[in-house]
Amino acid sequence: MKTSRFTPPPRVLLGPGPSDVPPRVLLAMAQPTIGHLDPAFVGMMEEVKASLQYVFRTRNNVTLPISAPGSAGMEASLANLVEPGDKVVVCRNGVFGARMADIVGRVGGTAVLVDNAFGEAVDPDRLADALRKNPDTKLVAFVHAETSTGVLSDAQAIADVAHRAGALVLADTVTAIGGVPVETDAWGLDAVYAGTQKCLSCPPGLSPLTLNERALEKVKGRRGKPHTWFLDLSLLMSYWGTGKRTYHHTAPVNLLYALHEALVMLQEEGLEGSFARHRQNHEELVAGLAGLGLEMAVPAAIRLPQLNSVLVPAGIDEARVRADLLERFGIEIGAGLGELAGKIWRIGLMGQGSNRRNVALCLDGLRAALAAQGYRP
Amino acid sequence: MKTSRFTPPPRVLLGPGPSDVPPRVLLAMAQPTIGHLDPAFVGMMEEVKASLQYVFRTRNNVTLPISAPGSAGMEASLANLVEPGDKVVVCRNGVFGARMADIVGRVGGTAVLVDNAFGEAVDPDRLADALRKNPDTKLVAFVHAETSTGVLSDAQAIADVAHRAGALVLADTVTAIGGVPVETDAWGLDAVYAGTQKCLSCPPGLSPLTLNERALEKVKGRRGKPHTWFLDLSLLMSYWGTGKRTYHHTAPVNLLYALHEALVMLQEEGLEGSFARHRQNHEELVAGLAGLGLEMAVPAAIRLPQLNSVLVPAGIDEARVRADLLERFGIEIGAGLGELAGKIWRIGLMGQGSNRRNVALCLDGLRAALAAQGYRP
Repeated sequence: MKTSRFTPPPRVLLGPGPSDVPPRVLLAMAQPTIGHLDPAFVGMMEEVKASLQYVFRTRNNVTLPISAPGSAGMEASLANLVEPGDKVVVCRNGVFGARMADIVGRVGGTAVLVDNAFGEAVDPDRLADALRKNPDTKLVAFVHAETSTGVLSDAQAIADVAHRAGALVLADTVTAIGGVPVETDAWGLDAVYAGTQKCLSCPPGLSPLTLNERALEKVKGRRGKPHTWFLDLSLLMSYWGTGKRTYHHTAPVNLLYALHEALVMLQEEGLEGSFARHRQNHEELVAGLAGLGLEMAVPAAIRLPQLNSVLVPAGIDEARVRADLLERFGIEIGAGLGELAGKIWRIGLMGQGSNRRNVALCLDGLRAALAAQGYRP
Repeated sequence: MKTSRFTPPPRVLLGPGPSDVPPRVLLAMAQPTIGHLDPAFVGMMEEVKASLQYVFRTRNNVTLPISAPGSAGMEASLANLVEPGDKVVVCRNGVFGARMADIVGRVGGTAVLVDNAFGEAVDPDRLADALRKNPDTKLVAFVHAETSTGVLSDAQAIADVAHRAGALVLADTVTAIGGVPVETDAWGLDAVYAGTQKCLSCPPGLSPLTLNERALEKVKGRRGKPHTWFLDLSLLMSYWGTGKRTYHHTAPVNLLYALHEALVMLQEEGLEGSFARHRQNHEELVAGLAGLGLEMAVPAAIRLPQLNSVLVPAGIDEARVRADLLERFGIEIGAGLGELAGKIWRIGLMGQGSNRRNVALCLDGLRAALAAQGYRP
């Protein structure tokens, strides 16, 4: 075999994630590994927890990063909050709602789907109907910012409907966090998980998660252990807890350095500043796309500023446009997923990658790639 | 809140892992993140798979890194190989065998324990007895190199006994891999998982895993899906497979750069060279410890060269010695776990950390920390 050092090609990451990671975060990650039980590391863990409370806008004591990517945060939430036999209403308006329903079944729950079309927001009235028909529902799960479509749903309205029906509510904020407001406490979200590789500008591999007291009661009151040991929140809470720490697994030390630094950067800018920046660059992009004659796939009221779904014009080979962007300009944008495969592009302006330079690069590259196929605005 | 950049203190990692990560690997990890579906990244994934085949000494097609630490490799193996109702014989001679038994129960299997004392190797005869009494056993699971005690078990003998009884065999090589021979194919190990943060000299956060055809048949022939979606090997194989890749989760891109580079380094030295180096530095350490009047906790025949269990002399406050080493010399060594808590220290000479300089630093620090408590050899 002839394997030698891998050097990644130069890229501008304007897809659905991962997003570009700032040099500060990469350098923080490259600091020497220390022990996961080292007092200095334990001190850093406390800072990560406090920073995540800031980002999630919560005072929840149980606020910690799961040692694996966002999907593991989804699984950790459902594997701990759902007991065999529990009914869970899953709002599905894209790929990630469907994944939640799959996991609910695996952990022994019964998933009731409330469907909105790919590209629509979750409809709270439709959820209320489903809950009336399923009064024994224990949990409502939804995706705040659907990565597969670029749609923002109204988390507060969903939480209100769920709570009126006596159910807990679980929010997927993998793409939302850091890019649009997530008000864990003010909206009463009982459990929330996120990812690091989108608007937090940190490499993939961690999944921040927070649980409030109601969710914690459910976890503590389980009749049996979850099927998972690795993602058993009772064990993880002992490891990440205050007081005497109990060894659980070996934490991904260097990734946590990266998350720590990414959260420092976010706090320097402030959440409000980050939201405003995402909004502004989104508007610049939309205006530029309109100038190219390109239409957005999602109505303005429910668009995610950090993930822009753009309709592929008739007659254009969308895969060739993406390949062109990657090969000629080093720009990655995303394809459609599921029902929207072939119909849209997904352009991410996430975290530190949401900046004027990237808007300009994206519009310039798109113009050229479309022109190569004879497209005229 | 006043969180600012975290700077890890200078450390020499001579505990049970993580071990010191070479600058080459840290710098490889700090390269810019690219997309997890980027053709360049996919090419790197193929190199990682081939390098892991080299390290595991296998031609198994299913050889890939799980996107989470070693414990997730354990869980992935058991969650996929064990079906509800399956009987699993777990050899327990330390903390990690006990963890396996816990997971077997969580995924619906029945664990039959074959116990050896903490500090002993797994006894193949005792295993054979247990299999005679439990002829319906589907899987035998054992820890090749027990991280909690520093003991090496005879993997080939265990595999032979298991196969004669018609059971599959699963080996935990988290601490073994790269430090002592692991002959997946020659010994007929059906499933093997490992970790990156010990003798592979890579930061924690990934768990290499390999399955042979027999294990694969078991996974493919399951009556139902595993309880886990994140660690469902059928889905992971599609993502890591050859041919058209199916998106599963977002891989931890930068950690995979690190693993790639760590495996390049290991291939430059060669496995045999690595084993010989671990052996030699182990012998230097044992000789030096004897010079300090310290005794090894494990008989020479079953000692791990990469993880040295040392008896705490009478009258010595073992925790103070460790704190002294850390605070005065920046040296981390490990405490005993479980039954051996307070009775031993665990000194790791793992991966690139197995070198003459670290042996000297460790002996020098121990001498001083013991002298501070009035100890004389």
